[in-house]
Amino acid sequence: MSQILQENDYPQMRTLPTQAVREIVRAGDYRGHTAGLAAGRLQANVVILPEGHAVDFMRFCQRNAKACPLVGVSDRASPMLHTLGSDIDIRTDVPSYRIYRHGVAEEEVTDIRDLWRDDLVAFALGCSFTFERALMDDGIRLQHIDRNFTVPMFKTSIPTEPAGPFSGGVVVSMRPIARADVERATSISARYPFAHGAPVHIGNPEAIGIVSLDQPDWGDACAIGEDEVPVFWACGVTPQNAVLNAKPEICITHTPGCMLITDIDENQEVPVYNAAGRQAQPGSNS
Amino acid sequence: MSQILQENDYPQMRTLPTQAVREIVRAGDYRGHTAGLAAGRLQANVVILPEGHAVDFMRFCQRNAKACPLVGVSDRASPMLHTLGSDIDIRTDVPSYRIYRHGVAEEEVTDIRDLWRDDLVAFALGCSFTFERALMDDGIRLQHIDRNFTVPMFKTSIPTEPAGPFSGGVVVSMRPIARADVERATSISARYPFAHGAPVHIGNPEAIGIVSLDQPDWGDACAIGEDEVPVFWACGVTPQNAVLNAKPEICITHTPGCMLITDIDENQEVPVYNAAGRQAQPGSNS
Repeated sequence: MSQILQENDYPQMRTLPTQAVREIVRAGDYRGHTAGLAAGRLQANVVILPEGHAVDFMRFCQRNAKACPLVGVSDRASPMLHTLGSDIDIRTDVPSYRIYRHGVAEEEVTDIRDLWRDDLVAFALGCSFTFERALMDDGIRLQHIDRNFTVPMFKTSIPTEPAGPFSGGVVVSMRPIARADVERATSISARYPFAHGAPVHIGNPEAIGIVSLDQPDWGDACAIGEDEVPVFWACGVTPQNAVLNAKPEICITHTPGCMLITDIDENQEVPVYNAAGRQAQPGSNS
Repeated sequence: MSQILQENDYPQMRTLPTQAVREIVRAGDYRGHTAGLAAGRLQANVVILPEGHAVDFMRFCQRNAKACPLVGVSDRASPMLHTLGSDIDIRTDVPSYRIYRHGVAEEEVTDIRDLWRDDLVAFALGCSFTFERALMDDGIRLQHIDRNFTVPMFKTSIPTEPAGPFSGGVVVSMRPIARADVERATSISARYPFAHGAPVHIGNPEAIGIVSLDQPDWGDACAIGEDEVPVFWACGVTPQNAVLNAKPEICITHTPGCMLITDIDENQEVPVYNAAGRQAQPGSNS
């Protein structure tokens, strides 16, 4: 496939199995958002840092588990995320990467093979796409899926619990939910602790420091209908905000909305991949 | 209080509020198990390691989240676990510590002030006492609570997912559950991902490599009644098994059953302490 797929090719991508999507992404031929792709597979936010920051970053994830639910960590000197799938290479398998140097976002690329070093550690964090599917399966409408745009994300005044150099406000994603569905959306999402769990706020953007819903910090603006309420979930872009403060020499993340697609069943109790022939991880829900 | 409280003083300990229990423990005056103490507070398994092992140990916890649900990590060069309570000092606040050197358990002590070094990192892992309370609140009988002994724990043939030098079998705790209550016990415990979640096995000890229920590796043996089924949950003693393999120069853990008592409400969605005057962590269930 020589042509690069864009957001307009998204309907076509939605029909493909996980491995086919991964191969198109790996080849650099799709750089769009991944909502709705590879149905049923856990998707993940990505943060790649030098090993010297790893302990503090994992402390940060533990202390801010709603925003940063850790679902995978690469081994020393390896770009493979072997606990998330059979052949996931973090250097190529994200549709779009963002490169931060000393806390400044410098560029977006589809491949980081030339930037990979053996002292880098890749972290995968759970993603709201998991509970979105559960919401839709229960008949709850989500505008950004229906209309194919990226969910709006906002910086907030809700503080994270700092760890080492990592600090800053929690980033949230916002979905307008029909008033009658809000309670159900809350209890459904609460069942997914590895995908941000229950909302962090319901109703009033100003209460959490959001000035205007029309101006998201990432993603696309999304109007609130008359019978709808804005519902805010903690978001895996929170570390990208913390990186602005920590200013590591290098940090590589996914581009918001453009996630790593894993082989994990998104209903598994814990996110560890069961390769064929390996004994199943105990306690899977599936 | 000059006299050292033992297991026989346990009924008296059960009536005390959290801070009073902590002060007795801190003074070295109680070295017994903590099941049923400080009602409603999250209790935790403890692992203390040199910082050089921290990244691998946190990888191990992430990959084995049912056995090792990370609920707290100390800051660099600090013995305080400030995200788990107002004044928790990991050097004194566990009733009984076990000291491992090069993978060998050498002694048990009530205080580790003389062993503390600034390069040590303390990890707190969730504990089954949390779901035990939920089971009892739902009318499910637990022998070891009724009869005041330590829950039996067993090494199993279920492999952990290794990380660096940490590997070995999952350790489980076993509770005999009335046949009619097994399904309910499963679904109740599944609601506590920070306390081992759903059972890893129900019914047949041999299927997971346990030769005899009469000979637990830790804790006290416990007979299975006629209408009861042995139910096995992943256990926070699993890292003590992994330490036997990793052989770190020093590792300090709690003595199985004798946990760290925190100030966290055990029904909180995420285990982060809300000190007075600090903004509440978003998304608490309480």
